[in-house]
Amino acid sequence: MQKIFQDTREHSPERSIVIVGVGLIGGSIAAAVRQRFPDCQVTGIGRSQARLQQAAEQGLLTAFSDRITPDTIPPHSLGIVCLPVHQIADSVRLLLKAGCEVITDAGSVKGAVYEGLGDDLNERFVGSHPIAGSEQSGFEHADPQLFANRLCIVTTTQPEDVVRPNVQRVMAFWKSLDSSVYLMSPEEHDRVLALTSHLPHIMASVTASCVAPEFLAFTGTGYRDTTRIAAGSASLWASILRTNAKYCLEGISEAQQQLEKFREALLAEESESLEALWETAAQSRRRLHQDRSERPSGTE
Amino acid sequence: MQKIFQDTREHSPERSIVIVGVGLIGGSIAAAVRQRFPDCQVTGIGRSQARLQQAAEQGLLTAFSDRITPDTIPPHSLGIVCLPVHQIADSVRLLLKAGCEVITDAGSVKGAVYEGLGDDLNERFVGSHPIAGSEQSGFEHADPQLFANRLCIVTTTQPEDVVRPNVQRVMAFWKSLDSSVYLMSPEEHDRVLALTSHLPHIMASVTASCVAPEFLAFTGTGYRDTTRIAAGSASLWASILRTNAKYCLEGISEAQQQLEKFREALLAEESESLEALWETAAQSRRRLHQDRSERPSGTE
Repeated sequence: MQKIFQDTREHSPERSIVIVGVGLIGGSIAAAVRQRFPDCQVTGIGRSQARLQQAAEQGLLTAFSDRITPDTIPPHSLGIVCLPVHQIADSVRLLLKAGCEVITDAGSVKGAVYEGLGDDLNERFVGSHPIAGSEQSGFEHADPQLFANRLCIVTTTQPEDVVRPNVQRVMAFWKSLDSSVYLMSPEEHDRVLALTSHLPHIMASVTASCVAPEFLAFTGTGYRDTTRIAAGSASLWASILRTNAKYCLEGISEAQQQLEKFREALLAEESESLEALWETAAQSRRRLHQDRSERPSGTE
Repeated sequence: MQKIFQDTREHSPERSIVIVGVGLIGGSIAAAVRQRFPDCQVTGIGRSQARLQQAAEQGLLTAFSDRITPDTIPPHSLGIVCLPVHQIADSVRLLLKAGCEVITDAGSVKGAVYEGLGDDLNERFVGSHPIAGSEQSGFEHADPQLFANRLCIVTTTQPEDVVRPNVQRVMAFWKSLDSSVYLMSPEEHDRVLALTSHLPHIMASVTASCVAPEFLAFTGTGYRDTTRIAAGSASLWASILRTNAKYCLEGISEAQQQLEKFREALLAEESESLEALWETAAQSRRRLHQDRSERPSGTE
């Protein structure tokens, strides 16, 4: 299904990275780089000079600016855009124009970023999606280990071209933060993540919406865990779902079919169908921890 | 909506309890009673003498038997049936016949138990559902604090009769294990729990079923938490869902409508509708922890 990155060459670490959007993810990338590569320059770019100043005082940044211009981008920099999905393409375009050597991002949806770039899409841009996060937000919660032992999907529109230097460079960057790296096309990424991440968020939201506030006292740990991610930011999640609408709709359709099977089995009072429905999903779910401790062969 | 138990009288602790089914729940009740009321006799009844012997050696039981007969039930005992829902009525019937003074249970569905008793329903039976559990099973994982600071719903078919001595006795028992107690009718219990517990299990199962095993590597903590309860026992959950089919079907219908709203908002590319859908559920979910730390007034 996906190309797996088997890196057999050594990459020299980055000498300068430029992070656009210094929140939890951007801040954690900064923290991870500062901890592992103290000689690497880390430039933060954001809207608020005061916030960037605080991030610098916290030791996350070596320089910062509130704009993307040629003089704020050191030579040979790797740019990393850590903004909401619908804002990524514009910043990538500015970084390309300002002469940033190679650019990646950390968005949860990839097709929309490539589409947003349109004719400006350039082989200097290589998309990424580190599958890591936290309930928290803001660089105050930056964690230098956020990406360690987690997967990062790197995307390219020419999947056969695994050895393209820019793709290799972005992959090596995430590896240097101790992530495992997979290479996929943007479409493949969006199709897979719709099922593994976006649909679970929709289902959590739907489940939460079915419990009126006066019944919350009668929920247990099952409801609590099943709906935890439904408490996330509405603007963030509306942006993710909307920008991945095509594959989210496919996921919803699959969920609707499965829910209909539960309905039919309950209507027909068929214990065996109910048990079979439950058991198929349960077996898949029980494989999760196994798969986590034993990475699929070929992964790094 | 529900009657709330305001107990102003003192109840003397039980002198003898008989637990039918010494698994995680039955074992935890035994452990809780042994720790709090060392003078109380705790009789375990189960299929395997060897298992009961082990539970006794672990200090959970003071006596045990593999059958329910008048000579295995000490005088003035409170019987507690901790078996899967579809097996409860038969055991309650045997306990009634053997002379057990008052009987309760710990089943997740209540209407089916009352219906299963049919003409044998007797005011000596008062249903219970402690909303507590664990991923684990077996008395080896018994926890004397499993019910502490958790809710227990006690059910009666005559909700107006809060002061009926047997109802008071069962309520006082759960309070003595440090649970909060609510009184409801069996139907009200099943309707509420369908939304707060059974539907979340169905949704978790559906969500898990949408991720093929080869994609598990691309799941994050969202999928992990949202589907945790989907790994539960198929026979247990098929039994719960089937015995509460009527209200589970209502829950599924509500979830289907909500899922359809997400589908329509995505199809129409309506960011505002998506955000509003998300935010309504998110606000409800965010109230959970607040409600947990501040119990609704009148609860105990």
